[in-house]
Amino acid sequence: MPWPERKLIEHIRRLARPRAGRALVHGIGDDCAVLELHSRQQLLVTTDLCIENVHFRRGWHPAASIGYRCLARGLSDIAAMGGEPLACFLSLGLPPRLPQRWVDQFLEGFARLARDFALPLAGGDTSRAPVITADIVVIGQAPAGTALLRSGAKPGDRIYVTGALGESGVVLKRLYAGQRVSPKTGSRHFYPSPRLKVGQWLRRKRLATAMIDVSDGLSVDLAHICEESRVCAEIVAARIPVASGSTLELALHAGDDYELLFTAPANARVPARIAGVSVSEMGVVRRKKDYLPAIQILDDNGRLRTLTSRGWQHFAEQKKR
Amino acid sequence: MPWPERKLIEHIRRLARPRAGRALVHGIGDDCAVLELHSRQQLLVTTDLCIENVHFRRGWHPAASIGYRCLARGLSDIAAMGGEPLACFLSLGLPPRLPQRWVDQFLEGFARLARDFALPLAGGDTSRAPVITADIVVIGQAPAGTALLRSGAKPGDRIYVTGALGESGVVLKRLYAGQRVSPKTGSRHFYPSPRLKVGQWLRRKRLATAMIDVSDGLSVDLAHICEESRVCAEIVAARIPVASGSTLELALHAGDDYELLFTAPANARVPARIAGVSVSEMGVVRRKKDYLPAIQILDDNGRLRTLTSRGWQHFAEQKKR
Repeated sequence: MPWPERKLIEHIRRLARPRAGRALVHGIGDDCAVLELHSRQQLLVTTDLCIENVHFRRGWHPAASIGYRCLARGLSDIAAMGGEPLACFLSLGLPPRLPQRWVDQFLEGFARLARDFALPLAGGDTSRAPVITADIVVIGQAPAGTALLRSGAKPGDRIYVTGALGESGVVLKRLYAGQRVSPKTGSRHFYPSPRLKVGQWLRRKRLATAMIDVSDGLSVDLAHICEESRVCAEIVAARIPVASGSTLELALHAGDDYELLFTAPANARVPARIAGVSVSEMGVVRRKKDYLPAIQILDDNGRLRTLTSRGWQHFAEQKKR
Repeated sequence: MPWPERKLIEHIRRLARPRAGRALVHGIGDDCAVLELHSRQQLLVTTDLCIENVHFRRGWHPAASIGYRCLARGLSDIAAMGGEPLACFLSLGLPPRLPQRWVDQFLEGFARLARDFALPLAGGDTSRAPVITADIVVIGQAPAGTALLRSGAKPGDRIYVTGALGESGVVLKRLYAGQRVSPKTGSRHFYPSPRLKVGQWLRRKRLATAMIDVSDGLSVDLAHICEESRVCAEIVAARIPVASGSTLELALHAGDDYELLFTAPANARVPARIAGVSVSEMGVVRRKKDYLPAIQILDDNGRLRTLTSRGWQHFAEQKKR
């Protein structure tokens, strides 16, 4: 590892600087972190593994963006439950010849997003590893029984998504094509802001019946809702909020957008903007039938066709060929 | 990966089989797991990264032992706080050409230890990776304010350790020397049982002032207590419980024993056995002085000498040469 383990942990400990008055009782320096939840809260836990050359490439993303994005994935999972994040943990494996500067910038990007949400880094682990390996754990809370699950969508519910889809896909497509992309031009790809406020608003208002974040791609993530809720979905191509400069194809399959996808009853008053983020209604939940595909899409010619779940993995494999 | 990700997750989901009546409200299948703590409990969180060729070698340990040991490391951290484990999470990176049989046995070893403590596998992540990469998260609880920290040791306290030390060191030494070791002959190395009951007993009785598990080696782990408690330690070589067939050197430095190291006031009545495990008093906590080394050891000739923290990493490096 670039630094001896002890020095790396000391550095992380300084970066972690927990704030008083939050859930963290004891952070780095013990066998476990100790946290205190507010009463009548349930605990939310998510883990996300980020591995070099699988989830990111060192030549494509600045180290700060990689650190930021690792934590954003975890925070987006908390957002998708309508939760409030309490603490994060970082298990970090580093190759022996990695420049110290890279590690500094990675941790700075990570800490920047943590600071945005006043989130203490409460612990983790370090090791050497053949490639950069970061496993992020985010712990959050939500009042008992209110966390938004994937399994609550009902036939007749409308399907919504926040923001715009496919912006990250455009950047990924250019990166796979060997082009350089400046973090300034694809800022939501390099520094995605997890939709925590939107998720919390939907949980408080009890408007949404099911929710997930769009990390693997709309076609994959909507299929997760369908599977866990045992329903089908029908979406309208023309209603999908395609990011400026992107395409429907990328909006449907490229993923990595970290928007929220949710369902709400037909009579629910879902506003056009929540916490400053636009919300688009784009389809309807249908009763599950054996002969129906999980997701159908109404195209611009008025034809209903099957939407196959592909997501970013397929997209990535295709671009590699 | 050996299996497609989806099939692997389905397999893990079947293995996870959460039990009713425990803390887990929603497990695998959502963006986050949802857990419920008992009231007036604080949350304990630990993460442990296990990487092939750093923490284990495929040729040295059966896959079931590797899976078991990954989880044992996390459970031992919960034991060291006197906590009750509630749920575990597994982030698993697998090389594309790894045999499916290896993954099955790894998961079976992992699940075997989880079953021993009725611990649900509540979530995690999967990815491909250049080497086997497992990050384990264990979530536990302890009544508010009672978790045993590293920082509570006071001058005059006595120093104790459970079980015997150096058994794992003997096995590691033979493995580094190129010998094969059957899991039957070194069973506590291959299948270490985390000392959860001992830790919980010490927490309930409020006997211990500081505690840590012996994972990196007695010389390293005792130094952690000294550092966090701002004290020095003096141990007696003849009182260290060296495992049968092992040596004092291995007991001091080889680590990987997963016993509990704790301090208690001089007048505390610490029994010779706790929850069926022997307990040895082996030293005393001293006031920190600038001219004193953190740890001194009284050898068999009555000489007090400095004990340098080395631990398994040094031990491993030495053996590699």
